[in-house]
Amino acid sequence: MSPPAVADTDLVRACFRQPVERTPVWFMRQAGRSLPEYRAARGTGSILSAIGDAALAAELTLQPVRRYGVDAAILFSDIVVPAHAIGFGVDIEPGRGPVVAQPFRSHRDLERLRPLDPDTDAPYVAETVRLVARELAGSGVALIGFAGAPFTVASYLIEGGPSRTFSKVKALMHAEPGLWGGLMDRLTALSVASLRSQIMAGVQAVQLFDSWAGSLSPDEYTRFVLPATRAVFAGIADLAVPSILFGVGNGELLGLMGTAGSDVVGVDWRVPLHVARRRIGPDHAVQGNLDPALCVAPWPVVEQAAREVLASGAADGSGTGHIFNLGHGVLPDADIGILGAVVDLVHAEGARP
Amino acid sequence: MSPPAVADTDLVRACFRQPVERTPVWFMRQAGRSLPEYRAARGTGSILSAIGDAALAAELTLQPVRRYGVDAAILFSDIVVPAHAIGFGVDIEPGRGPVVAQPFRSHRDLERLRPLDPDTDAPYVAETVRLVARELAGSGVALIGFAGAPFTVASYLIEGGPSRTFSKVKALMHAEPGLWGGLMDRLTALSVASLRSQIMAGVQAVQLFDSWAGSLSPDEYTRFVLPATRAVFAGIADLAVPSILFGVGNGELLGLMGTAGSDVVGVDWRVPLHVARRRIGPDHAVQGNLDPALCVAPWPVVEQAAREVLASGAADGSGTGHIFNLGHGVLPDADIGILGAVVDLVHAEGARP
Repeated sequence: MSPPAVADTDLVRACFRQPVERTPVWFMRQAGRSLPEYRAARGTGSILSAIGDAALAAELTLQPVRRYGVDAAILFSDIVVPAHAIGFGVDIEPGRGPVVAQPFRSHRDLERLRPLDPDTDAPYVAETVRLVARELAGSGVALIGFAGAPFTVASYLIEGGPSRTFSKVKALMHAEPGLWGGLMDRLTALSVASLRSQIMAGVQAVQLFDSWAGSLSPDEYTRFVLPATRAVFAGIADLAVPSILFGVGNGELLGLMGTAGSDVVGVDWRVPLHVARRRIGPDHAVQGNLDPALCVAPWPVVEQAAREVLASGAADGSGTGHIFNLGHGVLPDADIGILGAVVDLVHAEGARP
Repeated sequence: MSPPAVADTDLVRACFRQPVERTPVWFMRQAGRSLPEYRAARGTGSILSAIGDAALAAELTLQPVRRYGVDAAILFSDIVVPAHAIGFGVDIEPGRGPVVAQPFRSHRDLERLRPLDPDTDAPYVAETVRLVARELAGSGVALIGFAGAPFTVASYLIEGGPSRTFSKVKALMHAEPGLWGGLMDRLTALSVASLRSQIMAGVQAVQLFDSWAGSLSPDEYTRFVLPATRAVFAGIADLAVPSILFGVGNGELLGLMGTAGSDVVGVDWRVPLHVARRRIGPDHAVQGNLDPALCVAPWPVVEQAAREVLASGAADGSGTGHIFNLGHGVLPDADIGILGAVVDLVHAEGARP
């Protein structure tokens, strides 16, 4: 079975640095608590049960497309779904994030990370993709699939939950490089299997979330993280869909991330896009980078900041290779009217080739 | 009354990029929960009451000097002490940090930030300095005073507590620049008054903590934060003690921070010191930058990382202008035996001019 032909959308064109009709825009965590229709549809069930209900997950995926008119939907799911699906023992606590009852500690824990068979372990993921892809067919709106990068998933498995310091994961990578390598291999396999399944089911682009890589020094990233990140992109290269690598607080790593094999590198708000392009290198598109914290400010503030992002994204003069996004996810208290106005502004004023 | 002559210590010499006997080393948050003698002395009282008890605060300040043999003590206090002392309504919650019952919102709140008279509002601070300075006289160990930088203090006053996004403080600085300027002026006056009082009482160097400045874009830092930071250093320049400016996650800001007027710029673990020196410029010493998260790892890991910090700090060949420290504060679960071994390593192997 070969993957579907890559859709003819501005999102995909921008990933490949081809001319676009309009600068494409979407928002990380655009489906979520900031939307009243999300809160209504989600009800009181857990996030993992919503993800496991393909019809509900498809609805949550599509809500922000209807609300904002964004150029891409991103699959409603979570980076810990593969580890959860193979029974590692991961839950998602409301307001806290992924938590692990028995964190990863030793070689014996490698056995708890068997390969993922997407069709039997998590069939709801591909089913959600198929439902959304059918809905979006011919609309010009792309569907983005995603996975967690091995390091960021490992940080949850080792720390047992969200961390501010990442001290346990850093200690393990330095002190037990063999065990760390085994863990990276298994998490790479999980990410590749999940992404391949999503692509075969119909996503037109994928994003790899290495959200917490910015906690590492460039040396740590090079030695302990970049090889596995490269292996993920190598593992989907034959499927020919564009790929995005994202991290927050990763200014020092942009040059290294540009060597990981993605078509696009995500940039947070700390580095202007034209500076980021110089660090990442010429063969990549960039995604970003409006500060999500500004989306609670009055519109004139957001408007000026969004215009600066557009100008910085277009500073190379080609008018290509920029996907407008926030520098990190939508905050729960973001003003959704403001987010809609940002989409309209980007569509009206984004760079043209 | 003129300030005491600057002490003849390696810490002060390193700040001024003069030749040192040994590379000086101290640790941010070296006094704290990681030390059993700290937990014993602190008992169950609040942090603010410990700070308000000069004899206890002096003891807590001196404990890490005895334990580790570090080259500097740092006053046991907190960056919100001046705001607390003038009655703004700040408390420090164990395990959480500074919290504010009635956050700063409008022009009326400016009236809650009257000038600080250190002698009457917080006499215990200078008294602690005098007690510690007497104890350290002639020992070669420096006493460092400190204050919070206006932005970082403002973040607590506006957000009402620790924040991950700083969305309220960012919204205020952008949307109400006049109000923001008034707030910066008042917080600058608090920091200057507190630092001057500490210097007159006997500290031999000061550190300005702009811990959360790294959440800002370079443009935000330049427009909204750097002017007040410069005003703090200008306000103590006549007292001729060396000064250190510190922030975490501030790689993008190092060049700007180098223009703020301090003698030393602190660097976190994400930027190697020789890279940081290039960004900061030649006229500054650097402080840092062992990753505090590594101090829970086995000694061979820490040893290698500490040696790399020493090599990077000495990479300009002069053997001067490096104060060894962590890239951020000691973690509560840090291995204090490891921290002691780091001090010994730095003293044995630090650069010589």
